[in-house]
Amino acid sequence: MTDTTQNTRILLASRPHGEPTADNFRLETVPMPQPGEGEVLLRTIYLSLDPYMRGRMNDAKSYAAPVEVGAVMEGGTVAEVVESRDPSLAVGDVVLSHLGWQAYGMQPARQVRKLDPQRAPVSTAVGVLGMPGFTAYAGLLEIGKPQPGETVVVAAAAGPVGSAVGQIARIKGARAVGIAGGPEKVAWLEELGFDVALDHRSPTFKDDLKAAVPDGIDVYFENVGGHVWDAVLPRLNTYARVPVCGLVAHYNETEAAPGPDRMPRLMQTILTKSLTIRGFIQTEFVKAHYKDFQHEAAGWIADGSLQYKEDVVEGLENAPEAFFGLLTGKNFGKLLVQVGDDPTL
Amino acid sequence: MTDTTQNTRILLASRPHGEPTADNFRLETVPMPQPGEGEVLLRTIYLSLDPYMRGRMNDAKSYAAPVEVGAVMEGGTVAEVVESRDPSLAVGDVVLSHLGWQAYGMQPARQVRKLDPQRAPVSTAVGVLGMPGFTAYAGLLEIGKPQPGETVVVAAAAGPVGSAVGQIARIKGARAVGIAGGPEKVAWLEELGFDVALDHRSPTFKDDLKAAVPDGIDVYFENVGGHVWDAVLPRLNTYARVPVCGLVAHYNETEAAPGPDRMPRLMQTILTKSLTIRGFIQTEFVKAHYKDFQHEAAGWIADGSLQYKEDVVEGLENAPEAFFGLLTGKNFGKLLVQVGDDPTL
Repeated sequence: MTDTTQNTRILLASRPHGEPTADNFRLETVPMPQPGEGEVLLRTIYLSLDPYMRGRMNDAKSYAAPVEVGAVMEGGTVAEVVESRDPSLAVGDVVLSHLGWQAYGMQPARQVRKLDPQRAPVSTAVGVLGMPGFTAYAGLLEIGKPQPGETVVVAAAAGPVGSAVGQIARIKGARAVGIAGGPEKVAWLEELGFDVALDHRSPTFKDDLKAAVPDGIDVYFENVGGHVWDAVLPRLNTYARVPVCGLVAHYNETEAAPGPDRMPRLMQTILTKSLTIRGFIQTEFVKAHYKDFQHEAAGWIADGSLQYKEDVVEGLENAPEAFFGLLTGKNFGKLLVQVGDDPTL
Repeated sequence: MTDTTQNTRILLASRPHGEPTADNFRLETVPMPQPGEGEVLLRTIYLSLDPYMRGRMNDAKSYAAPVEVGAVMEGGTVAEVVESRDPSLAVGDVVLSHLGWQAYGMQPARQVRKLDPQRAPVSTAVGVLGMPGFTAYAGLLEIGKPQPGETVVVAAAAGPVGSAVGQIARIKGARAVGIAGGPEKVAWLEELGFDVALDHRSPTFKDDLKAAVPDGIDVYFENVGGHVWDAVLPRLNTYARVPVCGLVAHYNETEAAPGPDRMPRLMQTILTKSLTIRGFIQTEFVKAHYKDFQHEAAGWIADGSLQYKEDVVEGLENAPEAFFGLLTGKNFGKLLVQVGDDPTL
């Protein structure tokens, strides 16, 4: 039986230097919080693990404040209302929330969004119908702007963002080339209908990519960096667009890479090819495009043109290990931690 | 008396390795060309010298084909019609043309544009009312998109592109910070109304820039690269836009710069600050915006809000030397070679 007087949570115990380790986290048990007026007490069902969390572990200025040492690790969650002090939510409602790495948590009711389990599995609210799906949708359509017949290349293509990018590119009439790590992921991309799927671990990757884009690359959706970017850069066409939403290959770097310094050459390539390189965080596009996304993506899921895969790890205590795997590409599909039972299944 | 049976021209004699030298050019005299049907024979008045010409001397793929070894160096010109075999142009007309580095040349009449000397000095057709002015206008307004109160920083600000960028930024209600080499240029930028003008040769340049942009940089108009870019990059605001139309500091580089490799760090800055870095050549915007530019710029010149300076070198034979100076910032204002008399003065 669940202990409803105690909450379990995972804190940032210390900041990592380079690759994070188990020592950077601490699991603790504390008394159950009590909701105040306008708040709800929530029981976590799914915790979403995402690469951006690595950035939050650093004490560095970025688009969001870092997690403080001693604070609960941040994260999106799907949770069930167990106590409500707001008329808008009832016990048993399932909501999209941002409780972080913990079994229970409180949030003001107006900061969570009630989910309709009839519409789609509630886990998709942190996946294909949530932040990762919207990152793909907004970055590809608002920055990448693929035209019919153009070639779109996406890295980490078996992840929740990349798999949506490639499928939406095809829905818009573009050619989709997906890059992933290992034959199993490559096979799945082929199932999804990617025009070409490539394994970046192959010793012939650079040549494979060249052969896969005979007309060059018009849109490269960047969420990896590293040797994939190195192989893509010479293949970009004039006027190519590069939405940059992640650089997971570099998140654990502690010092600058050895020379030569390729920054001046990159700037010259941007100039001579009239490239657009554009960093973004999906929040920027929420106001203008989130509603359309929800509507369109639900339609594509219903008609089978947008498929997704989830990689579910059981138990909050296994979140750190699962997160380490995410940073090295071990997950296959959207990585979720099942923290508690899903009452909608 | 002018010899009308002979033409003088400057050819690309060999490709430079690094900094170009006099040996890379050859001056020769050849018989005067004879225009065919639909063509005009033109006498060069002004030859425009521009940094992009350095790129044309290389045998490298870029946005335009290189000049072949043994061919006339490329370049925009203001010229007088001396013989016409097309009804649209008469002897004595002055036209914007692209004859390259030569005293006479032929072009199909439909490829040149007749100038109205009453409207503005004809030299401005290759300056503030021509390619450099339009580069400033299109890059700043279509890519930089400065909003009232934002901070626009421009390098090579005493050049024909940079001086227009700063002044147009102010016309649009933005703060303009100009960067140039030496106190004389800095003083001129202050005369033009730049909010701040900085000397990049100053030992305190980095700190001077920091002090000049207390609210950070929203638009950096890049036409230089090098240590100016290094100083600007940490000061860019979230959502800053960087139109890149030139990188003159790097044009003579023959090998990659020594490490560390700053490319991954640049990509991370693009990500965390949601930057837009966008290379461009003004030709891309001609169809949509050239007419508006001509109209608006003429108005700004007339009301004094857009001023310009010309740096005129006498004699075609001095073009190579003047061009070397252009690549190291010796010119002050739009660099022109006066190849022949200007009949409109």
